[in-house]
Amino acid sequence: MRWLSGTKQEIMSELDKEKYTRKAEDQQVEVAVKEIIDTVLTNGDQALIEYSKEFDRTILTDLEVSPKQIEQAYQQLDADVKQALEKAKENIISYHKKQKQYDFMDSEKNGVFRGQLVRPLERVGVYVPGGTAAYPSSVLMNVLPAKIAGVEEIIMVTPPSPKGVPSIILAAAKIAGVDRVFQIGGAQAVGALAYGTDSVPKVDKIVGPGNIYVATAKKMVFGVVGIDMIAGPSEIGVLADSQANPAFIAADLLSQAEHDVLARTFLVTNSKELAEEVEREIAEQLITLPRKDIAERSIVDHSWIILTDTEADMFAIMNEIAPEHLEVQMADPMSRLHEIKHAGSIFLGAYTSEPVGDYLSGTNHVLPTSGTAKFYSPLGVYDFIKYSQVSYYTKEALAEIQADIALLARKEGLEAHARAVEYRFKEENQ
Amino acid sequence: MRWLSGTKQEIMSELDKEKYTRKAEDQQVEVAVKEIIDTVLTNGDQALIEYSKEFDRTILTDLEVSPKQIEQAYQQLDADVKQALEKAKENIISYHKKQKQYDFMDSEKNGVFRGQLVRPLERVGVYVPGGTAAYPSSVLMNVLPAKIAGVEEIIMVTPPSPKGVPSIILAAAKIAGVDRVFQIGGAQAVGALAYGTDSVPKVDKIVGPGNIYVATAKKMVFGVVGIDMIAGPSEIGVLADSQANPAFIAADLLSQAEHDVLARTFLVTNSKELAEEVEREIAEQLITLPRKDIAERSIVDHSWIILTDTEADMFAIMNEIAPEHLEVQMADPMSRLHEIKHAGSIFLGAYTSEPVGDYLSGTNHVLPTSGTAKFYSPLGVYDFIKYSQVSYYTKEALAEIQADIALLARKEGLEAHARAVEYRFKEENQ
Repeated sequence: MRWLSGTKQEIMSELDKEKYTRKAEDQQVEVAVKEIIDTVLTNGDQALIEYSKEFDRTILTDLEVSPKQIEQAYQQLDADVKQALEKAKENIISYHKKQKQYDFMDSEKNGVFRGQLVRPLERVGVYVPGGTAAYPSSVLMNVLPAKIAGVEEIIMVTPPSPKGVPSIILAAAKIAGVDRVFQIGGAQAVGALAYGTDSVPKVDKIVGPGNIYVATAKKMVFGVVGIDMIAGPSEIGVLADSQANPAFIAADLLSQAEHDVLARTFLVTNSKELAEEVEREIAEQLITLPRKDIAERSIVDHSWIILTDTEADMFAIMNEIAPEHLEVQMADPMSRLHEIKHAGSIFLGAYTSEPVGDYLSGTNHVLPTSGTAKFYSPLGVYDFIKYSQVSYYTKEALAEIQADIALLARKEGLEAHARAVEYRFKEENQ
Repeated sequence: MRWLSGTKQEIMSELDKEKYTRKAEDQQVEVAVKEIIDTVLTNGDQALIEYSKEFDRTILTDLEVSPKQIEQAYQQLDADVKQALEKAKENIISYHKKQKQYDFMDSEKNGVFRGQLVRPLERVGVYVPGGTAAYPSSVLMNVLPAKIAGVEEIIMVTPPSPKGVPSIILAAAKIAGVDRVFQIGGAQAVGALAYGTDSVPKVDKIVGPGNIYVATAKKMVFGVVGIDMIAGPSEIGVLADSQANPAFIAADLLSQAEHDVLARTFLVTNSKELAEEVEREIAEQLITLPRKDIAERSIVDHSWIILTDTEADMFAIMNEIAPEHLEVQMADPMSRLHEIKHAGSIFLGAYTSEPVGDYLSGTNHVLPTSGTAKFYSPLGVYDFIKYSQVSYYTKEALAEIQADIALLARKEGLEAHARAVEYRFKEENQ
């Protein structure tokens, strides 16, 4: 772990140096992805079958996973896992329901109405990574907010493998309420969802994490369809004072570190003693972790202990970091909430261990990383709706503003705009 | 105007052929933009000065427009224009205030709290195009929602010119409440806002329309900062029945057509007679338009009259088109609102001429184009806020779910996640 102290400016300029920067700009990946998407556009399903052979070493007879296969996977799921996923689902639904938004339509002077409609997207694609990153919990997190928003059809895509799609993923898809599952992955799956093929329906938005090819493809089809944020490695920031439990903090930092050698962890504290104890605890807890190699690499390369003089500085620095996950391990944590400006998901107090949010609390675990919590939100119901404005003007109401409209339109050189309003008041048009 | 009729499928497959597709993929533009952004990253302000000389034929001594210049522009603004802009501002504020969202924080079983914070972005960049596309109304539309969201600092950028930035743009910036104005444009302005230079502060999100270089640059910095949707040419769809006024419809279609030779207009109706009258009216009204050449090109190349058998088909087709602007020129238009699924801004009835929304009604005129209303929203207050999740678990609450968390974590191979929760209940940690 690297220790930093000093003024906020000094600490931030140190952190900026280390800031994770995406390699999405990598020219080679971009060229490859563009070619893949173009091929899917031209050859459709045939391209998907060929890429599956080439990239996933899988010969597909069906691009779609049959409802029967999905049902079987669900039936075979261990009862305790099923129960845990059902409980997670229940909590995700109860949290995300609170995010629902409603139309408004207000009656105003002169009979004017102005309003806003909230409408769900019609069809959404959810990308679920394959291999060791195939997490059933992520299926729930990506799909359920779309269901709550009222999305009519949810299409899941996930890479094929010679052994078939992992049955726990299919079972999770069934629990979450996915409508159709296609065993396609990589940039080709993103291309298929964005433009549609004979088998794969075109969607309105693509969400879900993926490797650099998937991320680059999503960015490339941005505008053709909507996309969610582009995720980087996992992160946690912990704000801790001297009363915090160092064993808890160490365990929580390690739970992020085990994700990825690039995972970043930040302990920000005004207690040197606590920081030292956390460091000792990490060394000790690391020893017996199955994913020790990954967690250790992450801790060595991407973990910081930041020591500040004041609690105000702790918050100021953490707001600059804008972490994906933020734990507040301080006395009376609820009273500090107003000092937090930027974080994806905030965990208050000693017993709100970050993995609670990964699985059971019902808050979403698809979160903005790499400081993007300054402008992105957790995945939520709001990602699967869009608004339409509504206005209704009576003749009297239009009469009152027609001169201003015409004036501004002509000032902008748009005569037809001015006339469109004025025509309404010409005698021959009465 | 081109006439289409037939089944919904036949009509849609005709329209799909003509669908406007962005040329953002153009390799040459991408290469040029990448080089410009890289140069701004390396050379900072110096690059901005050199590009201004090269692309805008302007030698800049100051990148920033001084507050004094802005104040002067405001003082020199014609009183009637000032008054019209102030009225527009008032209406934009009164509409957009309704979009404000609020925190929630709910107390649940076992002392659990789950909530969501709504926080403004800290710093936003607004791109305002130069030349003939410099619209004071757009300055208000882009800036005011950010002000209402609570954004602390709003930076406007607009291309320099040897004559200086148009004074009406500076005056509109003052009226809207822009904090700082930089006279930089093109991809270099986007690069400067995304990464910051000595003079130009890094922002969290960039909004505002621009040419293909600006649009490509925005897409390229997506993820480093937030961006708004990428706008295409303007569009209008009109749903009209036999009682509609053909002169009004023609005037409204022309108000979109005069924007751009690529602007698209759609009249969808079940009345052949009305459609024929609209066509005649357009021919007549076109003659005296100052921007006749542009409007005529748009009408010839990109306007459709779609004749359907039923009113249900009219809505079905319009929902597929998902137009930027949608007028409902039908009897009892309010009662048809529920049939509209996708449109940026909906204008109900004979007197809600689309230009009302461009200037005075207070609804936003920055809207999703090219069918992207299926997944994008009008620019709004929601574009300048982001959410943070909050959770608080007591020991009792955690105890109740700890086994499920540990089970799912181990199922996903994430042992440290399981242990993080279990540590809380180990005897030595009590």
